[in-house]
Amino acid sequence: MFSEKMDLRLPGPVQVPKEIQIAMQQSFDHPMMDYRNPAFQEVLQETIEKSKMIFQTNNLVIPLTASGASALETAIINTIGPNDTIILCVVGYFGEYLQGITNHIGCKVVRVDAEWGEIVDPEDVRKALKENPEAKAVFATHCETSTSALNNIKEIAAIVQETEAIFMVDAVSSIVGAPLYMDEWGIDIVATGGQKALMLPPGIALITMSEKAWNVIENHQCPSFYFDLKEYKKGLESGLGTPYTPNIALVCGLREACNMIERGGGIENEYKRHAALRDMTRAGVRALGLELLVEDAAASPTLTAVKLDNADAFRKMMREEFHIALGGGLGKVKNKILRLGHMGYTDAADMLKMFAAMELALKKSGHEVELGAGVSGAQRHWLENPNC
Amino acid sequence: MFSEKMDLRLPGPVQVPKEIQIAMQQSFDHPMMDYRNPAFQEVLQETIEKSKMIFQTNNLVIPLTASGASALETAIINTIGPNDTIILCVVGYFGEYLQGITNHIGCKVVRVDAEWGEIVDPEDVRKALKENPEAKAVFATHCETSTSALNNIKEIAAIVQETEAIFMVDAVSSIVGAPLYMDEWGIDIVATGGQKALMLPPGIALITMSEKAWNVIENHQCPSFYFDLKEYKKGLESGLGTPYTPNIALVCGLREACNMIERGGGIENEYKRHAALRDMTRAGVRALGLELLVEDAAASPTLTAVKLDNADAFRKMMREEFHIALGGGLGKVKNKILRLGHMGYTDAADMLKMFAAMELALKKSGHEVELGAGVSGAQRHWLENPNC
Repeated sequence: MFSEKMDLRLPGPVQVPKEIQIAMQQSFDHPMMDYRNPAFQEVLQETIEKSKMIFQTNNLVIPLTASGASALETAIINTIGPNDTIILCVVGYFGEYLQGITNHIGCKVVRVDAEWGEIVDPEDVRKALKENPEAKAVFATHCETSTSALNNIKEIAAIVQETEAIFMVDAVSSIVGAPLYMDEWGIDIVATGGQKALMLPPGIALITMSEKAWNVIENHQCPSFYFDLKEYKKGLESGLGTPYTPNIALVCGLREACNMIERGGGIENEYKRHAALRDMTRAGVRALGLELLVEDAAASPTLTAVKLDNADAFRKMMREEFHIALGGGLGKVKNKILRLGHMGYTDAADMLKMFAAMELALKKSGHEVELGAGVSGAQRHWLENPNC
Repeated sequence: MFSEKMDLRLPGPVQVPKEIQIAMQQSFDHPMMDYRNPAFQEVLQETIEKSKMIFQTNNLVIPLTASGASALETAIINTIGPNDTIILCVVGYFGEYLQGITNHIGCKVVRVDAEWGEIVDPEDVRKALKENPEAKAVFATHCETSTSALNNIKEIAAIVQETEAIFMVDAVSSIVGAPLYMDEWGIDIVATGGQKALMLPPGIALITMSEKAWNVIENHQCPSFYFDLKEYKKGLESGLGTPYTPNIALVCGLREACNMIERGGGIENEYKRHAALRDMTRAGVRALGLELLVEDAAASPTLTAVKLDNADAFRKMMREEFHIALGGGLGKVKNKILRLGHMGYTDAADMLKMFAAMELALKKSGHEVELGAGVSGAQRHWLENPNC
């Protein structure tokens, strides 16, 4: 009966709101949606203008018809060659991802590590830059989706800004949910995807560059044809559009997502709303007697990791009995954590539902748990902070 | 942000499952969907065959392109004229509806009443039939949607069956959720709509008649052209289809609804599932300290009415703060009750979400309520009866 019913409490993809579904659907049969038609170019330019808000930037935002991962690679291959040095901040699975990309290039990598669940000490970045003055770039993950830890991008940016190196940020699972002020903080490249707090189905990535970054890019031979940013800049600035066929439906969806954020009170309101959902979720987890993976000060507003043995059997029960999908552990925390997504089109009642179902699933799988405990912990938080 | 987000805990319409949305959408552009085309006639015949299951009948099921209310009128105007007597069982707003229809005809009406929230005593029907031996029909509401009381159709049917009168049932809000065995119980006409436990968007009504009813219909001049059942029978039995353009999308949606019920384990499983959701809901309401309008023995499996002063302000808060729509009171219980829908595409976690949000809304509106109380009451019930 319920084979298609599923609440996505995942760290992405998330539920696609009806407005976005309709905007995408309309693009399939609207006559103006030939992508070389001036009418679509207007939509594209409008979408690019609107999406600057989500990066808090005045820089050109480039949409890539590809997943978020491609934007990370695009940032690196447009700036770093085999003879260059790059400093990677690695605090989990998606930090290792960056290492995978640089391995592919064969450049020199200097790592600034922290334990999974913790964040990088910005002073370690300063030290790495001092010890490797030739470093051409520093790359840090904003929200480490595998642990729900949020790196201190503002402080790292301030440190990198004092050097010749450019600072690149993976904001795939943080954008819209966690504050990120590209221009004010001095970030040089921000890469993200649409399927997290932007509420789109997967298939579009966004990347934006500072002038400092463009200076590097213009003097660098990009080994990829499809991901050569110089071509995108040329096409978009001349009004011709993207060099290759854009994902028209997702561009239309992105415009609607930006409109929804504007109608909902703007991006600052999204930051507040996500922070409130995070705090409510953490209150509920604590009231359930479960242990959080990340400390309060480093907790991402978009998802929350919770320690749990045999987490994957628990997730299966949540899916099958209650039609709620939770995220699981990746890499070395596989089967040891739950990742509870609270990004995008999620409200307080959705989180209460999740806790109510978790209580039953914990009970059924033999845990000591007081029925209603997690729910009432989250409820009490909500009553005191009704911002969700 | 959440302008389109709404959980429908209404007594209908209910959430339309994705499978049904897709089945309806496909009908818009599939070339076979010209309704006079033999391919659509196959779909129509298949849908009619499948939908016999939801009435537990072998009689012809007729789809009307109209709301559920039209099927009630169709039942009456195809059998009753100005000189006839009809016995109406009235236990709430939708019982009064039947009175409205009969007023329009100007026939003689004999009422068998019960208080709102209670059900008809079948012995009162026997008495009315004895006192009015000329009565041509008895009409009873199965689930009285305004109060959530479920009339004892089986016993009333047994009584009417002993007479010349035909027995008609309004099964709009009971079908699929509450057991109804048309042939076994001896009901002569069942009328229903698609937008309740059948999970369809509004716009289609279904009606089915026993041989005893058809004998009356064939000898009766129906004052309506559009709702003349003789024409539908002729068209459907000859393979030409419905006499007037059918709602093609909803016929396709109805076929998919029947397929979903079959895949989910069949109609008996739906009865069990709805009864379990009702019992869980009642446990939650009691644990919240609120008063149920209807006694256990007469409670409908599809919705639950709860007494609450200023219910409409409370419903507004539930919609605005938690994006959950609850039903309100109609007629003389307006603003005095909540009606909690648990029909169709609703699972246990949906009900827990509703209780968690209700606790907060009760607290915010000044009620004494222990956080987690309603949720844990419903959870305890679920643990002991995990059938929802």
